[in-house]
Amino acid sequence: MSQGKPLVGLVMGSDSDWPVMQAAAEALDEFGIDFEADVVSAHRMPLEMIDYGRKAAERGLRVLIAGAGGAAHLPGMLASVTELPVIGVPVPLKTLDGMDSLLSIVQMPAGVPVATVSIGGARNAGLLAARILASADDQLASRLRQSLREFAQNLNRQASAKGA
Amino acid sequence: MSQGKPLVGLVMGSDSDWPVMQAAAEALDEFGIDFEADVVSAHRMPLEMIDYGRKAAERGLRVLIAGAGGAAHLPGMLASVTELPVIGVPVPLKTLDGMDSLLSIVQMPAGVPVATVSIGGARNAGLLAARILASADDQLASRLRQSLREFAQNLNRQASAKGA
Amino acid sequence: MSQGKPLVGLVMGSDSDWPVMQAAAEALDEFGIDFEADVVSAHRMPLEMIDYGRKAAERGLRVLIAGAGGAAHLPGMLASVTELPVIGVPVPLKTLDGMDSLLSIVQMPAGVPVATVSIGGARNAGLLAARILASADDQLASRLRQSLREFAQNLNRQASAKGA
Amino acid sequence: MSQGKPLVGLVMGSDSDWPVMQAAAEALDEFGIDFEADVVSAHRMPLEMIDYGRKAAERGLRVLIAGAGGAAHLPGMLASVTELPVIGVPVPLKTLDGMDSLLSIVQMPAGVPVATVSIGGARNAGLLAARILASADDQLASRLRQSLREFAQNLNRQASAKGA
Amino acid sequence: MSQGKPLVGLVMGSDSDWPVMQAAAEALDEFGIDFEADVVSAHRMPLEMIDYGRKAAERGLRVLIAGAGGAAHLPGMLASVTELPVIGVPVPLKTLDGMDSLLSIVQMPAGVPVATVSIGGARNAGLLAARILASADDQLASRLRQSLREFAQNLNRQASAKGA
Amino acid sequence: MSQGKPLVGLVMGSDSDWPVMQAAAEALDEFGIDFEADVVSAHRMPLEMIDYGRKAAERGLRVLIAGAGGAAHLPGMLASVTELPVIGVPVPLKTLDGMDSLLSIVQMPAGVPVATVSIGGARNAGLLAARILASADDQLASRLRQSLREFAQNLNRQASAKGA
Amino acid sequence: MSQGKPLVGLVMGSDSDWPVMQAAAEALDEFGIDFEADVVSAHRMPLEMIDYGRKAAERGLRVLIAGAGGAAHLPGMLASVTELPVIGVPVPLKTLDGMDSLLSIVQMPAGVPVATVSIGGARNAGLLAARILASADDQLASRLRQSLREFAQNLNRQASAKGA
Amino acid sequence: MSQGKPLVGLVMGSDSDWPVMQAAAEALDEFGIDFEADVVSAHRMPLEMIDYGRKAAERGLRVLIAGAGGAAHLPGMLASVTELPVIGVPVPLKTLDGMDSLLSIVQMPAGVPVATVSIGGARNAGLLAARILASADDQLASRLRQSLREFAQNLNRQASAKGA
Repeated sequence: MSQGKPLVGLVMGSDSDWPVMQAAAEALDEFGIDFEADVVSAHRMPLEMIDYGRKAAERGLRVLIAGAGGAAHLPGMLASVTELPVIGVPVPLKTLDGMDSLLSIVQMPAGVPVATVSIGGARNAGLLAARILASADDQLASRLRQSLREFAQNLNRQASAKGA
Repeated sequence: MSQGKPLVGLVMGSDSDWPVMQAAAEALDEFGIDFEADVVSAHRMPLEMIDYGRKAAERGLRVLIAGAGGAAHLPGMLASVTELPVIGVPVPLKTLDGMDSLLSIVQMPAGVPVATVSIGGARNAGLLAARILASADDQLASRLRQSLREFAQNLNRQASAKGA
Repeated sequence: MSQGKPLVGLVMGSDSDWPVMQAAAEALDEFGIDFEADVVSAHRMPLEMIDYGRKAAERGLRVLIAGAGGAAHLPGMLASVTELPVIGVPVPLKTLDGMDSLLSIVQMPAGVPVATVSIGGARNAGLLAARILASADDQLASRLRQSLREFAQNLNRQASAKGA
Repeated sequence: MSQGKPLVGLVMGSDSDWPVMQAAAEALDEFGIDFEADVVSAHRMPLEMIDYGRKAAERGLRVLIAGAGGAAHLPGMLASVTELPVIGVPVPLKTLDGMDSLLSIVQMPAGVPVATVSIGGARNAGLLAARILASADDQLASRLRQSLREFAQNLNRQASAKGA
Repeated sequence: MSQGKPLVGLVMGSDSDWPVMQAAAEALDEFGIDFEADVVSAHRMPLEMIDYGRKAAERGLRVLIAGAGGAAHLPGMLASVTELPVIGVPVPLKTLDGMDSLLSIVQMPAGVPVATVSIGGARNAGLLAARILASADDQLASRLRQSLREFAQNLNRQASAKGA
Repeated sequence: MSQGKPLVGLVMGSDSDWPVMQAAAEALDEFGIDFEADVVSAHRMPLEMIDYGRKAAERGLRVLIAGAGGAAHLPGMLASVTELPVIGVPVPLKTLDGMDSLLSIVQMPAGVPVATVSIGGARNAGLLAARILASADDQLASRLRQSLREFAQNLNRQASAKGA
Repeated sequence: MSQGKPLVGLVMGSDSDWPVMQAAAEALDEFGIDFEADVVSAHRMPLEMIDYGRKAAERGLRVLIAGAGGAAHLPGMLASVTELPVIGVPVPLKTLDGMDSLLSIVQMPAGVPVATVSIGGARNAGLLAARILASADDQLASRLRQSLREFAQNLNRQASAKGA
Repeated sequence: MSQGKPLVGLVMGSDSDWPVMQAAAEALDEFGIDFEADVVSAHRMPLEMIDYGRKAAERGLRVLIAGAGGAAHLPGMLASVTELPVIGVPVPLKTLDGMDSLLSIVQMPAGVPVATVSIGGARNAGLLAARILASADDQLASRLRQSLREFAQNLNRQASAKGA
């Protein structure tokens, strides 16, 4: 799904999470942010998951987005082996409407933060990655800041049009 | 805390979990089951945690008990790197009464089970370990089965005495 | 559903629980573990239920798996009359998404543990039974340990393949 | 606690439930209803508990009140072995504010009802027993109906006095 | 819906509650208990509701069953104007799965009990009414006690048949 | 507590609600709004409660504020017998943190609204009454609108001072 | 949707809220209350939203109704910039059944009240606006009070008819 | 609280949030990140709040941290008027254990993300800000990445020491 050197690693616990998580990919695409997307399961591929997190920064990734459901350990475990900001997306499963996923992701102990977005809120995960990259002091950031301002104006225009 | 070759590995995410988790140690002691107790944090010692889990079986451990609070990833992550039965104890923290811990431990995806006990139920974790060891077909099991039967009779006698 | 002398007793409160509980049977089958499956209702067959639990160990069963929904008393009541490890599966009913079943099963008082798995997590109940049998010091255990390791490798391979 | 032939059996899972449950006893005393109070634990005295329930009616009891906390199985199990009306009192424990007790008591399957009162609502359990006995067509009922009417007038007077 | 002089008043807040509440009517019919069924809304017919409750006993009713959803005030308000036992049935509406109904019914203040059954548990409300009538010391009670015993045996037979 | 002809009726289910509800009285006092305060229990004084609601408008009251806890029926029942706006204050009791009170007040059926404020939010109930009176087209309203604007400026000044 | 000078401003965070919110419009229409309806998003049109709230009173609006879902900030933010009474309608989204919307609207801090109605309870929001307008001391109020009394009688008649 | 040109704006809805929020300030101090701390209330200072958010980026801030309780609108409203990443800290108030704060902050609609941390998790908010600043491609980022690695090693050492 990525063309250039990816800046964002978009991972999920299972390919069944993709229908939720693809909204993050689309948001990254809209902002022209190169990313990679993978299934990296905390529970079925624990060593690869640890490895993925440990090497993320040196491979040039600057933000991780991790989606998972139920006892959602992927975002928090990645956050424990990388110094990159990790964005967690609670994926709702068949029962509990994602409340289990949300609490498993957001209630991290002091020392290891996960930037949690809403239940099923993968689009916002992509946008948050864009905001993070845009907050830097470099050329990409300048471009992204401009794009984010235009994005907000578009949101506004569309909402206003509906309200007219 | 252990004398002989430990059969149960009792681990917790933080030494602040000990006031809750020591009830597991006491139960194991009552049944004369050798165990070891350690702080093994999923989030602050992820590599050691993985290593602990991977070597648990070959080191002779036969059951793991893991207590953790909040986004409690320790029991599930251990379960993903060992074939031993892992018992999870949800530790209640300052808010939410342990509901976050419970859901983070019990809602594991298909493939990687955690045997979850009640919120703060470390004593039952110890007793469950005893039941598991007692279900085997060996000498220790015979002794433990007998002890468990006596234990149940004692529970019964004490409860009955109160009801008299 | 079983051929040899059953080692696992798989019971449920109602035959309407079977669509959920059969995943436990399938997991046991995959590991070649002999089991028996029965409807044993705590509320509609209380005496038979007590009797089932009391005789489980002497009949050669080594693990019980009990699924129930709502005010799910079956796992806990069985645990009170046997020294075998009892695995509880919260079955979700029409309302509350299984939260009532989960709390009714997991929140057992000190003295009588139930090894609780996720809401609707019958497959993990079967796998947990396999882990428990595999933790013993006998020939079946050796075989099961090997199977569990292969099982984990398969999980890993499948997850990795999706991530490729 | 009772003088005459008891009409109400007041039982609880543990003597630690007494500080909550004694309000039921006091209510019964206020109405002059003979009762017996016992610890009858579903989990630590399962056979005695079953026995208690089975013989309750023939011993002359006409209503059972059962209090329990956590995975509160006592009211429902008693209801499964007696045809008497069983009143359940959810006792709040250290965590979850009694929500686990409430759901474990009230969410009974079709066929086996438990008349559940509020969390910690033992006084109302006593009053409900009085209402049940008062709904009969006998002399005790006549007296109780009169007492209940006076009780309601007193409630009213006290509330009105505060409002003056 | 009733033939003889009704002993049970079955009321609900809205006729949209009937699909849930008719299971109570069916249970009463199975036991040959005469009843009347009405829509009596606490919020849309407050004066009639009060009046219904106040006259229930003198009209010969011996038990009230009241179903309501959301902010379910009907059972509690009836209980405040009658000395009869009132059984409350929480009806689940479009959101919250009946948790609002349950809490609005069960959490009554000391002095005014409501015998609450499970969410949507109208059948059990009917059975509880039968148990209450059967606990009296009269001829109807004798017949009902016998019927309840047979009912329990049937439940048992059916459950056992499934387990065979 | 009132001097002139009261415009707001401030009622509560029990005088134990006063520590929470007095903040409403204080807010009304700050705005110079005449009010009366009473205990009017839906469950212990049902007829007086109905009567209070029915006569509220003709007695000159223009807004009702009703606080109650647990199965909090007072605000909704008052709303069913008056055409005045009724403001409901969920009072937290010993368990459940007021969640039962909130749901019992806010989840009213279509046709009978209650203007619900936050759990324990009696001060806001008083302020909402002021806003309602201020939205009218009369002299009191003009004065109150001015007072509300000053109140908002004060909130702002105090908050800003803390932020300086 | 309005003909005369609007007295009620009916706003919502998104036009996807309209299927829920139109019931408020219908209620206002039934009472002949002029209103305006707009999409005013707190998050996508923050400045316009603030502006809408600040000018609402001077434009002649006397009540605001605001519906929003999820982290529903619209009602509370409007309440912070107007002295008008603001009625909040929690709109249920795909997960959590509107519990997030409810808490985000009702749990306002002291100083800034929102009159919250039930989840999805837009019809009651319209009726509450009518009650508020009817509580004033002017001609519209007289007419509305009369209409509200007739409305209550109709509710009663319809409910009674069903109960007949 | 800041010396150099602040990079992080740390704001809270009320100075009563400071006991929770100061842990964010301490974390920023540990990493030598200049920040400013202010009370900026969404509800009592709405215009200043909007203004704060709109000017944050041009004033040189690169990350905002916002803490709020109850109907916690501050983080989401700031996120709607800035393109900076906004970190939200749910502050627990007297009731509901911060669940209302969490849902009000995390459940943001698509388009306006808030990076939410755990209930009361202000320390993690500070650490997340450090991670975000460290993910940039500049000198500060290099230094911070190094500091974050040392921080993780310290966490590890301390945890390991406890486990020794």
